[in-house]
Amino acid sequence: MTWFTVIKKSEERTSDNASGRCGLLQTPHGEIQTPVFMPVGTRAAVKGIIPQQLYQTHTQMILSNTYHLLLRPGAAVVEQLGGLHRFMGWDRPILTDSGGYQVFSLSTLNRIGQDEVEFASHIDGAKVVLSPRIAIRVQNQLGADIIMAFDECVALPCRRDRMLESVERTLRWARLSREAHERTEDQLLFGIAQGGTDKELRTYCCEKLIEIGFDGYAIGGLSVGESHEEMIDTVNHTAELLPADKPRYLMGVGTPRDIVAAIAAGIDMFDCVLPTRNARHATAFTHQGTIKLRNETFKLQNEPLDEDCDCYTCRNFSRAYLRHLFMVDEMTGPILVSIHNIAFYQHLMAQARRAIQENRFNDWAARWSRYDMERKNTKKTD
Amino acid sequence: MTWFTVIKKSEERTSDNASGRCGLLQTPHGEIQTPVFMPVGTRAAVKGIIPQQLYQTHTQMILSNTYHLLLRPGAAVVEQLGGLHRFMGWDRPILTDSGGYQVFSLSTLNRIGQDEVEFASHIDGAKVVLSPRIAIRVQNQLGADIIMAFDECVALPCRRDRMLESVERTLRWARLSREAHERTEDQLLFGIAQGGTDKELRTYCCEKLIEIGFDGYAIGGLSVGESHEEMIDTVNHTAELLPADKPRYLMGVGTPRDIVAAIAAGIDMFDCVLPTRNARHATAFTHQGTIKLRNETFKLQNEPLDEDCDCYTCRNFSRAYLRHLFMVDEMTGPILVSIHNIAFYQHLMAQARRAIQENRFNDWAARWSRYDMERKNTKKTD
Repeated sequence: MTWFTVIKKSEERTSDNASGRCGLLQTPHGEIQTPVFMPVGTRAAVKGIIPQQLYQTHTQMILSNTYHLLLRPGAAVVEQLGGLHRFMGWDRPILTDSGGYQVFSLSTLNRIGQDEVEFASHIDGAKVVLSPRIAIRVQNQLGADIIMAFDECVALPCRRDRMLESVERTLRWARLSREAHERTEDQLLFGIAQGGTDKELRTYCCEKLIEIGFDGYAIGGLSVGESHEEMIDTVNHTAELLPADKPRYLMGVGTPRDIVAAIAAGIDMFDCVLPTRNARHATAFTHQGTIKLRNETFKLQNEPLDEDCDCYTCRNFSRAYLRHLFMVDEMTGPILVSIHNIAFYQHLMAQARRAIQENRFNDWAARWSRYDMERKNTKKTD
Repeated sequence: MTWFTVIKKSEERTSDNASGRCGLLQTPHGEIQTPVFMPVGTRAAVKGIIPQQLYQTHTQMILSNTYHLLLRPGAAVVEQLGGLHRFMGWDRPILTDSGGYQVFSLSTLNRIGQDEVEFASHIDGAKVVLSPRIAIRVQNQLGADIIMAFDECVALPCRRDRMLESVERTLRWARLSREAHERTEDQLLFGIAQGGTDKELRTYCCEKLIEIGFDGYAIGGLSVGESHEEMIDTVNHTAELLPADKPRYLMGVGTPRDIVAAIAAGIDMFDCVLPTRNARHATAFTHQGTIKLRNETFKLQNEPLDEDCDCYTCRNFSRAYLRHLFMVDEMTGPILVSIHNIAFYQHLMAQARRAIQENRFNDWAARWSRYDMERKNTKKTD
């Protein structure tokens, strides 16, 4: 079955294989236009936004986290209640990550074995074991449209021998994940390439992953502390190694500038907590850069967050009102700015798709290379 | 101008003057069907619900608080930004209270004078003065469709001489409020009857208020600690004293049982924080009584909060999912249950209006006299 089709490649390609491209991704819950941005719904909920509003932001697909759902409410509970889509009232596609990143970033590790990792839950310290087999079984139970191989993600910078060891473990776990996958008829399984910013290791990891064979390939282990330039350099290198006829997913990235540069490198899928996390901290994305709404400047500004945005928030509320909501701690502040920030990201993706189709991607992308915002680790869990 | 019309009185009337009735209330922002329930938007926002969703709950009108808006962002700011409707993106009618209740319940009083009261802001302790003149000027600036006279509201129980003094002050302030009102062409001004549960004082207060003459009359000072029976006894007594051709508003009430009993007494308008406040504490209204969603019982319940409800929440989410949202502290838990609880109240009002029009109000109301929930002071500020 051909479930991913590249419908248009940028004629202004950056290389033979990797270049900005538009595609269609078929899933049991509908067709997705790529490049696609997935808001993060860690605990089976995108923070502050109910599905009705998320649809209005033109969100096609969301991400949810295996690690968190495994701990609460538990995969068996979600399965018994009809699977993740039914559980969270979201009938468009979902991707679940494998829990690998969270195990290594959120929890206290007790033991890393050959085939499994034992950790203390970040909630109550309870001992939990995850392995490729368990991570895949849990994802089979949750029932997302796309599921991810269980991987190890290390913080950067990292010693080369430690990184090699981690890549070998990730590859071993990728094979075990592939073997464990039982819902091949209705869930796509993606492998995850690791290797930090080491190009040789990235090459090695990609080659081995392609040998195993996956429905799509993710680039993991980036946006964890390295600079924008290092990250994009690695993405350019890695995307080129991946099969042109499979979707490429850059995990946990990023700022508008990161995303635009990664689209140019041939990436098709993104997820990031930035739009919702920034919204909760009163920071809104605009075409002129991000703005911090608590600033006194906005006290009497009767215009919308972004004149070029037609989201629900921008059509109905002023900067002054949104500032007021944050100053008096009203929940609708984070809600309304989350709607806008996600709509802003979805508008960015729509612009990118259109620019590729109209052969003017490079021109359009150049504007975003100066997009003004602080860059930190964007790859947090929301 | 006839801006209030009683279109149907219950044939099963409880007394000659006071009986359940349906009416139409014309305002500059549209026509309201009474009896009407107003969700509380204290700081120019109904907690957790954006206007788009509030419209979907069939909310016709909301209440906002002068006291809070006076402190933040300030009446001049709201006025400069186009008034309260434009500011908060709500284009249906709004009622603002006068701040009287909050001055006496939330702040530290420094001094009660003849014509004014000085208090310390509950936010930063800043000295603030409110008077009938200021409260009305602020409400003229905010621009709600219905505004309230500045009154004194005392806690119950209360000594009779103290209550008499308070009634005299409320009457004096009612006169001053009437004189201060400058937007008589597009804002209705309601007087507020006080007097606690003392029928003689209630009678006296109503007679004097009617002499002054208002566009509508509110019953204040109830649901502040007295029993349901005491409250309804006072409402029955007081409603009967008020002009039949003007709307009657019972402030800050209450539980479904309170509201149904007060409709029987001839009350047309209600506001209360219960649906939203309970929602934030994981308590949902159902036709079988209130339920506390954190209870383990709901862990695997795949049915909606209330089988008889067709709100967005009940059409899309299970009790188990809503419980999960509260257990993991997701904002969408309070959001979704607030939507349901307000829809529940609006459905209650729609049922009441229909029962009156179909001459079966008493039968319908009897079912609600046993509605199961704790009763406390419902007259808090949200």
